[in-house]
Amino acid sequence: MARVYVHRFQVEFGDCDPAQIAYYPNFFRWFDASSRHFFESCGLPSWRETEKTLGIIGTPVVNTTCRFLAPTTYGDEVEVHTSIEEWREKSFVFKHQLRRGDLLLAECSEVRVFAIRAPEGPTRLKAVPPPPEFKQLCS
Amino acid sequence: MARVYVHRFQVEFGDCDPAQIAYYPNFFRWFDASSRHFFESCGLPSWRETEKTLGIIGTPVVNTTCRFLAPTTYGDEVEVHTSIEEWREKSFVFKHQLRRGDLLLAECSEVRVFAIRAPEGPTRLKAVPPPPEFKQLCS
Amino acid sequence: MARVYVHRFQVEFGDCDPAQIAYYPNFFRWFDASSRHFFESCGLPSWRETEKTLGIIGTPVVNTTCRFLAPTTYGDEVEVHTSIEEWREKSFVFKHQLRRGDLLLAECSEVRVFAIRAPEGPTRLKAVPPPPEFKQLCS
Amino acid sequence: MARVYVHRFQVEFGDCDPAQIAYYPNFFRWFDASSRHFFESCGLPSWRETEKTLGIIGTPVVNTTCRFLAPTTYGDEVEVHTSIEEWREKSFVFKHQLRRGDLLLAECSEVRVFAIRAPEGPTRLKAVPPPPEFKQLCS
Repeated sequence: MARVYVHRFQVEFGDCDPAQIAYYPNFFRWFDASSRHFFESCGLPSWRETEKTLGIIGTPVVNTTCRFLAPTTYGDEVEVHTSIEEWREKSFVFKHQLRRGDLLLAECSEVRVFAIRAPEGPTRLKAVPPPPEFKQLCS
Repeated sequence: MARVYVHRFQVEFGDCDPAQIAYYPNFFRWFDASSRHFFESCGLPSWRETEKTLGIIGTPVVNTTCRFLAPTTYGDEVEVHTSIEEWREKSFVFKHQLRRGDLLLAECSEVRVFAIRAPEGPTRLKAVPPPPEFKQLCS
Repeated sequence: MARVYVHRFQVEFGDCDPAQIAYYPNFFRWFDASSRHFFESCGLPSWRETEKTLGIIGTPVVNTTCRFLAPTTYGDEVEVHTSIEEWREKSFVFKHQLRRGDLLLAECSEVRVFAIRAPEGPTRLKAVPPPPEFKQLCS
Repeated sequence: MARVYVHRFQVEFGDCDPAQIAYYPNFFRWFDASSRHFFESCGLPSWRETEKTLGIIGTPVVNTTCRFLAPTTYGDEVEVHTSIEEWREKSFVFKHQLRRGDLLLAECSEVRVFAIRAPEGPTRLKAVPPPPEFKQLCS
């Protein structure tokens, strides 16, 4: 069974748009926050630390697919359920589910890589294989 | 040939994260902005108007798939190229390409619907078929 | 003694900028979230409700003054302490303190009004005196 | 006469909240964007460059005061007019005006410092006097 992190929070007024519902780019902000909480709960150091020790600056998204099933609005208590679905040679797959109670609001599958800065310049990135010690911590 | 709207802007410091690159949820903010500019350029009224005339509060995203090919950072001059790839009975498909010069940075395919408020409550939405006059304006 | 609401949360990676610290416009997002939590904790209905019953769409900010004393970064556990410092005839004053443990990170004084839509159009607002029942709930 | 930079853009749907007007924390995002454009127009290098050459990571805000005079909504063409009002020994003062045509929507006075990383750690900052060559470029 995959380890699951549950990130609980309330949707805020400022997260919502003139249609009175949460503005969908914020869903990705929430998935990303939950990703960091997931890693933190596994015992991974912060990216500030890993940049110093391994050169790893984070886990940028390579590919994301998201289905939006029901809207949510401010005041709603919601949860993101985050787990790692698959480890690949140079990448891994996050699954995020946004839920309000039993209702699934959105579901997202995200391919990410562990990345270091490329020699070409400070804003060029290069994927590296997931560090084995991180894989183990996340299992 | 599909009509293409090109939304030009500069990536801002505040769009970037501690890895020094644009934070990916902002890509969706940019795609959404370009979507509205696309409709505006076709001559569609604002959602404020359509809510009064047709009950339509906007075009919420049902499904999005995005590939991130290269990062971008503040100061970069970028463009979103937005077009409608397909009209379906109850939905339509936006294609967005984020480019810096000739370089494709990200590509996104978004299924959206025209939505009205559902009778169940102000934050419940209901898809309606794309109004024929809007389809015509966008062609 | 004024009633104080304490809004606790963790600073997220996506809240931070290339200087590795929380991007200051987000401080206002946090103060605004804490304002809504404050009202909710007092028993005020949501703005969705008040728009229907009283025409009140929220409490827009008229004036804000903020001092930034120390930076914060992702992973930090922080608190916004929110209270109402003063009720005036047509406005009121929020005080927000952002704290990390005993350390004061930022302090903000915000003049706000209860607002209804003005007859000139949907995006024109008009201040109304704070409803006495709301003042009482917040005391 | 102070040099003035005019940052023109359109308010986006995603900048607006359920009250249908631009969410006020975004005003600070706009002022900050205009600040960077101001420096760029003066010929200052990016903070990526100055971090390497001078250790300067940017100009964090120490104090901001903002008056909000009229709301704005998506589709509005607006301008931020940014200038430096005063140079002090260890800080300087930005003035930002948000305008729609002749109408002043918001006015903000911001005290900022040029900052380097403090020896205590990567997220501790230290103000340094404005570099004379930067003062000259901005005059």
